[in-house]
Amino acid sequence: MLLDDRLEVAVEEGKREAVRLVQDLCRQPSVSAQNLGVKECSRLLESMMKDAGLETRIITDHGGQPIVYGERIVDDAKRTLLFYDHYDVQPPEPLDEWKSDPFSGEVRDGFLFARGASDNKGNIVARLQALKILLQVYGKLPSNVKFLAEGEEEVGSPFLHKFVEANMELLRADGCMWEGASSDAKDRPVIALGAKGLIYIELRVKGPKVDMHSSYSTLIENPAWRLVEALSALRDDQGRVLVDGFYDDVEQPSVEELEYLEKMPFDEERLLKKDYGVDRFVHGLSGLDAKREYFYGPTCNIAGINSGYTGAGSKTVLPKKAFAKIDLRMVPKQDPQKILASVKKHVESKGFADFQFLVESSYEAARTPMSDPFVRIVESSAKEIYGVNPVIHPSMAGSGPMYLFVNRLRIPTASIGIGHFGSKIHAPNENIRLEDLYKGIRYMVRFMQTMGNQW
Amino acid sequence: MLLDDRLEVAVEEGKREAVRLVQDLCRQPSVSAQNLGVKECSRLLESMMKDAGLETRIITDHGGQPIVYGERIVDDAKRTLLFYDHYDVQPPEPLDEWKSDPFSGEVRDGFLFARGASDNKGNIVARLQALKILLQVYGKLPSNVKFLAEGEEEVGSPFLHKFVEANMELLRADGCMWEGASSDAKDRPVIALGAKGLIYIELRVKGPKVDMHSSYSTLIENPAWRLVEALSALRDDQGRVLVDGFYDDVEQPSVEELEYLEKMPFDEERLLKKDYGVDRFVHGLSGLDAKREYFYGPTCNIAGINSGYTGAGSKTVLPKKAFAKIDLRMVPKQDPQKILASVKKHVESKGFADFQFLVESSYEAARTPMSDPFVRIVESSAKEIYGVNPVIHPSMAGSGPMYLFVNRLRIPTASIGIGHFGSKIHAPNENIRLEDLYKGIRYMVRFMQTMGNQW
Repeated sequence: MLLDDRLEVAVEEGKREAVRLVQDLCRQPSVSAQNLGVKECSRLLESMMKDAGLETRIITDHGGQPIVYGERIVDDAKRTLLFYDHYDVQPPEPLDEWKSDPFSGEVRDGFLFARGASDNKGNIVARLQALKILLQVYGKLPSNVKFLAEGEEEVGSPFLHKFVEANMELLRADGCMWEGASSDAKDRPVIALGAKGLIYIELRVKGPKVDMHSSYSTLIENPAWRLVEALSALRDDQGRVLVDGFYDDVEQPSVEELEYLEKMPFDEERLLKKDYGVDRFVHGLSGLDAKREYFYGPTCNIAGINSGYTGAGSKTVLPKKAFAKIDLRMVPKQDPQKILASVKKHVESKGFADFQFLVESSYEAARTPMSDPFVRIVESSAKEIYGVNPVIHPSMAGSGPMYLFVNRLRIPTASIGIGHFGSKIHAPNENIRLEDLYKGIRYMVRFMQTMGNQW
Repeated sequence: MLLDDRLEVAVEEGKREAVRLVQDLCRQPSVSAQNLGVKECSRLLESMMKDAGLETRIITDHGGQPIVYGERIVDDAKRTLLFYDHYDVQPPEPLDEWKSDPFSGEVRDGFLFARGASDNKGNIVARLQALKILLQVYGKLPSNVKFLAEGEEEVGSPFLHKFVEANMELLRADGCMWEGASSDAKDRPVIALGAKGLIYIELRVKGPKVDMHSSYSTLIENPAWRLVEALSALRDDQGRVLVDGFYDDVEQPSVEELEYLEKMPFDEERLLKKDYGVDRFVHGLSGLDAKREYFYGPTCNIAGINSGYTGAGSKTVLPKKAFAKIDLRMVPKQDPQKILASVKKHVESKGFADFQFLVESSYEAARTPMSDPFVRIVESSAKEIYGVNPVIHPSMAGSGPMYLFVNRLRIPTASIGIGHFGSKIHAPNENIRLEDLYKGIRYMVRFMQTMGNQW
């Protein structure tokens, strides 16, 4: 099913502008982990929101990076749609693996490459362009729109809860469109209805006060060894987390959810070989088991580890310090604070009471039920625009501050976006396909029409 | 006991020149691990050797970095002394912990700071200056002198064995003065009579073909986890190496050696608190036990480990690769090749058969008996010049290619030098005290006289 002709023409005529806007937004670095360019990017985004017809403001009184907020209230609207996005990006490192500058937004063969192209700047542009086109063609939007874009999602949204708690009324809405998603390996659009919780910890351990000649290792404890031992003690030899109570609150999927999972397409072959070059999943998981683990399983991941000499060749050193960055992802009902306390206790009990814990982020999981009417609208619009049945994921495998909207504000929330299976979010050569950008604009137009007019 | 007046005057008058030569040599970087400036340094050293009265040549046909060789044959000499030194240095990293440029040779408060100042360039200068002064005052040397300086000791002397095996006759000598040593915490000169063996391995493990979003860690194995588990499997929870046969060939010290060890001064308090800021030795070792472990124990050390994101803040990544640099130090009778094979087998047997092993260096341990007449000369000269009984270490705790000289060429070998307890070799702010440099020149003059005239 196509959009109204005038809308189709407007999308067509706006293609070049859409690409330019993604480039403009990506060319402004906004690496929250490194506090690089974030404020500059908030101002750029505000001007783009204004240009899309929103009344905007930049909010900073919650602390942390600026929130860019825009809204457009329609006199006779029945419904209110809230967009949640973020304009910050992951660090671009390792830089030497990018084929073009991560902040150049280079277009090659119909792809646009940039840190943030898919996660989440391309989606922001698709959404703003949809608003602009609807206003341009009809002079009004089909529903009230509230657009919230934060600047530190990639470091765990440490201040967003303050903003949300102080603005419950402002943010009231009938449905929340989450930051985005990527189509699957067979190019079916994906709708995600939840997010895992997250604790991100940096574990630090100190050794002697200077790097020493490694010949002293008969006498002096090496902090790298201690870190390796502490990490190793977090899991058994099957990779199961040994922290007390870690799995206690993990809910197994219901019979209905398992039935949906069973049917859900999941292209293991492509995931394993073509895109990621691995031979097998952990424990040889496949089929329903792999899907269940992916959507319903908690994780404990080493995101980074470093100690001593890591340059070329050899250096015989007993390092003075070591650190690891760990992320644990949680499913609904698991309490991040309880698990954090349990991890600390576990590490202490193994003889590592002197380790420092730096908690970089911590938040709960969230899920909107598949049966929610809002989900039906997201789904039916996708079927119309993409011409295939979308795949509904009960949750993202990733995380985000969705719990603030779902658990606190009680807004049904779903995520759909312009990424594709090879978008490489969080990795070198992140990209979007330009065709997905254009289709994403059409989708958002259709979705807003359906939400405003048929719900 | 003082040197002959004319010698004392020559040492005194040559002080400024000696400092300048150390600076010149240190200002020429020669980081073998990074192949930085090594060849340039070999040419500089050759010119210094010539200036000290040696007939020189630069040898490269063994492969690897140039060997700078100099000699001076005396018509009626009874004895031949061989010097072993190296003009390469450890990498200077971490650079931000140096108070002055590691290649500046800055002098502050009577200390000269530079990478290589103590290990081993300052010693080279002390030895060459002693030759120069003896020639200046007497017109001849008290013994034949052969001076070998290699350019890749810090990366495990990978080619030196080829040179030595091809030049057994050239290198024939009655005693070998090894590269150097540092005085102990109470400023007693240290004479070391051996070196531990070494295997330096880089362990590499691959994961998915790109860095992935860490949400995939339910399904895809993380190479950082696998590395941590493989390393952890190398030792038990007491730090004892679990590799099959690792301790089989370790010889315990004899009764006589234990008696010497018992009396040997070993300033634990200073080592622990003042210089290295640690509270205790591993397992609470102290006294004889600590000394035995230090001189007679093998080691397994993590010199470096790296994977994933190690920058500021957080990044949730499942890394595509991980590596660790491991050094194992061995004592006499332990066979590096046998142990390397055993480490590989161990790692394989634990489920890590896909790990890559890059062996950066591998050599045997060596020891000269305390009763050797050459050791008496080294010791008595030290007592005369330093005015205290030197401390004799049965071995360095560190390593070097001494086995080529002791085990192959059968030359008694001892090490004494101009370092002090706080010289920070292999660490930031490596330094020597200028007074030690001057005294080191006087010592070498005295030692050569004793060796040539009284043996």
